[in-house]
Amino acid sequence: MELYNYFRSSASYRVRIALELKGLDWTYLPVHLVKNEQLQPPYADIAPARLVPMLRDGDVLLPQSLAIIEYLDETHPEPPLLPRSPAERARVRSLAFDIACEIHPLNNLRVLRYLVHEMEVSAEKKDAWYRHWVETGLGAVERQLAGHPSTGVYCHGDTPTLADCVLVPQVFNAQRFDTGLAHVPTVMRVFEACMQHPAFIAAQPSNCPDAA
Amino acid sequence: MELYNYFRSSASYRVRIALELKGLDWTYLPVHLVKNEQLQPPYADIAPARLVPMLRDGDVLLPQSLAIIEYLDETHPEPPLLPRSPAERARVRSLAFDIACEIHPLNNLRVLRYLVHEMEVSAEKKDAWYRHWVETGLGAVERQLAGHPSTGVYCHGDTPTLADCVLVPQVFNAQRFDTGLAHVPTVMRVFEACMQHPAFIAAQPSNCPDAA
Repeated sequence: MELYNYFRSSASYRVRIALELKGLDWTYLPVHLVKNEQLQPPYADIAPARLVPMLRDGDVLLPQSLAIIEYLDETHPEPPLLPRSPAERARVRSLAFDIACEIHPLNNLRVLRYLVHEMEVSAEKKDAWYRHWVETGLGAVERQLAGHPSTGVYCHGDTPTLADCVLVPQVFNAQRFDTGLAHVPTVMRVFEACMQHPAFIAAQPSNCPDAA
Repeated sequence: MELYNYFRSSASYRVRIALELKGLDWTYLPVHLVKNEQLQPPYADIAPARLVPMLRDGDVLLPQSLAIIEYLDETHPEPPLLPRSPAERARVRSLAFDIACEIHPLNNLRVLRYLVHEMEVSAEKKDAWYRHWVETGLGAVERQLAGHPSTGVYCHGDTPTLADCVLVPQVFNAQRFDTGLAHVPTVMRVFEACMQHPAFIAAQPSNCPDAA
């Protein structure tokens, strides 16, 4: 398998974690987002949405990080990244979506660029925007983790799930942008536990071949 | 089952379509987003993320529209909203995420409010922001649907899937905001096919009890 990705892309980082948790052999194919390589051939010719990450598995090309992780979990079931019961699976997915649909889309590179270049907002307001969505969004995640009987060492139980694959890159990104995290102690406890796990360590941006 | 939702919420509309496609009995519980009912008790006490929709199934409370639809598909498999093979499932999910993670989060009510009230951008720039993300985002969906051998009457094949549950509310919303849609003929062909289907008709905002 080959993963088209970028070291600093949170969505790419999610998939790298999943590949490492599954113990799969895979090849790193860098696509430089700051140089806009995702918008140009040859990548744009094979990636109609022009986003990273994208997984190649034989003849199949798969975009969208969460779709890729579900695919990996269906094709390589061990260790599972989703629990067994439908209600528990829904809890794990909803935690993942609380980040992937409510926080990350507002703070990725192309959105911050649009705010500055097209909306002409100040750097101060752009930073306030970033912090607002990360702080309120992680606050919502905290309220769902803290005191919930299914929260364990990780977001759900004592083995990593899809939710952890999404949580860690978001916290990593928040730390890079000096976001307040004191209000989310359970999120941070889970994050610290993940960052002791070899799969999360192997997948982190600084270990990527395209990290400058 | 009971669904906490709001007639104009695109995420709520997705779940209503899925419930209708499955032919399930369910009760409509309105939460008025414009009046901020989602942020106050009693709803805020049971919905830690303070978003709609949320499904109640017996003792279980499930937030996040896509997690709810996956749950419904796992607990009520017929008719299926995802294909059988992992690669096909990934295609359907990735189309859903292309909308749910790349378009809708940038254009929902709370984000448009923040742009106006906190960022103090003009109505003109706010509208341009809306159109930009919807037009570029649906353009990415169009490139994945047009000419793809798996695209049928609907996004994937000739029966509705999760992708259609997400596509229709987004196009519905785009039409309400006068967004350009001439560049996405395949998206519009699928949308028109869905709007002939009784489940999509039953679920539409104008048929909701809280529609003014």
